[in-house]
Amino acid sequence: MQKSVVETTFHIRYAETDQMGIVHHASYVVWLEEGRSSWLRAHGKSYAQFEREGLMLAVSDLQVRYIQAACYDQRVTIRCWIDEVRSRQVQFNYEIVEAESKAILANGYTKHVCIDQHGKAAKIPESWQQFLRQG
Amino acid sequence: MQKSVVETTFHIRYAETDQMGIVHHASYVVWLEEGRSSWLRAHGKSYAQFEREGLMLAVSDLQVRYIQAACYDQRVTIRCWIDEVRSRQVQFNYEIVEAESKAILANGYTKHVCIDQHGKAAKIPESWQQFLRQG
Amino acid sequence: MQKSVVETTFHIRYAETDQMGIVHHASYVVWLEEGRSSWLRAHGKSYAQFEREGLMLAVSDLQVRYIQAACYDQRVTIRCWIDEVRSRQVQFNYEIVEAESKAILANGYTKHVCIDQHGKAAKIPESWQQFLRQG
Amino acid sequence: MQKSVVETTFHIRYAETDQMGIVHHASYVVWLEEGRSSWLRAHGKSYAQFEREGLMLAVSDLQVRYIQAACYDQRVTIRCWIDEVRSRQVQFNYEIVEAESKAILANGYTKHVCIDQHGKAAKIPESWQQFLRQG
Repeated sequence: MQKSVVETTFHIRYAETDQMGIVHHASYVVWLEEGRSSWLRAHGKSYAQFEREGLMLAVSDLQVRYIQAACYDQRVTIRCWIDEVRSRQVQFNYEIVEAESKAILANGYTKHVCIDQHGKAAKIPESWQQFLRQG
Repeated sequence: MQKSVVETTFHIRYAETDQMGIVHHASYVVWLEEGRSSWLRAHGKSYAQFEREGLMLAVSDLQVRYIQAACYDQRVTIRCWIDEVRSRQVQFNYEIVEAESKAILANGYTKHVCIDQHGKAAKIPESWQQFLRQG
Repeated sequence: MQKSVVETTFHIRYAETDQMGIVHHASYVVWLEEGRSSWLRAHGKSYAQFEREGLMLAVSDLQVRYIQAACYDQRVTIRCWIDEVRSRQVQFNYEIVEAESKAILANGYTKHVCIDQHGKAAKIPESWQQFLRQG
Repeated sequence: MQKSVVETTFHIRYAETDQMGIVHHASYVVWLEEGRSSWLRAHGKSYAQFEREGLMLAVSDLQVRYIQAACYDQRVTIRCWIDEVRSRQVQFNYEIVEAESKAILANGYTKHVCIDQHGKAAKIPESWQQFLRQG
């Protein structure tokens, strides 16, 4: 089945660099998150709605492979798609590319578990599972 | 004289919130910076070029007044314009508004001094002073 | 009356720098916050308790004056004291100094308003006003 | 051979939380970095010296497993040790624990490659390899 890949493009912010003169590796983690926010929006929902239903998708695993340095003022594209949806877990995959050349700067994934307002593991509601599976 | 106001609009990132459930006040400082990056770009130059000439515009003063809370997933617009250009200093002013309603969320300014690669105060080159004055 | 100044000292983190090779100006804003957290702790309470009582101290005003650059791995001391306590507002003042030489790197203040869980302005409870006034 | 584990303990900063009410997952990445800075310091060198020699240790791989939520004002301990040193690469391992209970909050690793001032892959100087191998 074809995956629905959502692309989000923006300029790299100065604050995202460090004294190496390139983007700090923790900034990419924030970009991945913005990639997933954007995936949900592009499919018609907001992660904000998920939280309004009293649930949260907490990150349980994070992996990033840094391939090529990124620089201030460059435009980057975050490519995000869903790898797998299970009743209690969802995995997003990512590729970060230089917006014009499409050179791959990094790739990675995040796994998320559903937790309720008391911090307990919970099932992802059926409606959300279906929503996520469309991607 | 009419000021050239540049507007930059983006979605608020999840990482920019804190446990109050609203945007952390330090996130606005990063937005102001992105507002100025965008001002320079909109006028045909990048701050990256300024640094390639061996000069930096270091922040000497920062003031922000927080008027209304901002939330994850909202779209905000940073309105940025130049208040004053002097031979060794430049001041940018800002207004942060909710993108749709135009409700004012915050305003502020930053003052910058020009420093060279040795960290010494320097004059802003004439060409850059002129460039900044067009705004 | 003598002000109670609380000092918090730590190493500057690499992530706090930017490509100028010095600490990014937004990092100082986080340090000020840690300075106030530390002020409360040193006087026997935690800001976490304030939030558990259903109240928040939102930042309404921020001012920072940057005097001298700070660098990765340096040790800095945040000196924090309370300037004024009113029924609905409190102001903290700060001085950031290089831990060993005591050279002043920056100074500033933050003003805070008390808000309740609905985001409405509220009075700072008497017990907290007294607590803050001891400083 | 016994690994030299360096422990770094600090209070969680308010800015490190997000609207889930717990620490944002990108904050841990900054903590890992502070853990390695501290490892080098504890063994008598600073990463700043490495950069003064014209070299950098760029992150090539990052993995974090999030086990238990961390909260504002808690004290956490970053336990950091070196997993492997090769001529062009070094891997640091980490465990993040709640400072008092020693409950494990997260673990992970980072791999680093040595690059020179032109961004080219380089050998880690022998003296630094030896230094890192002592751990």
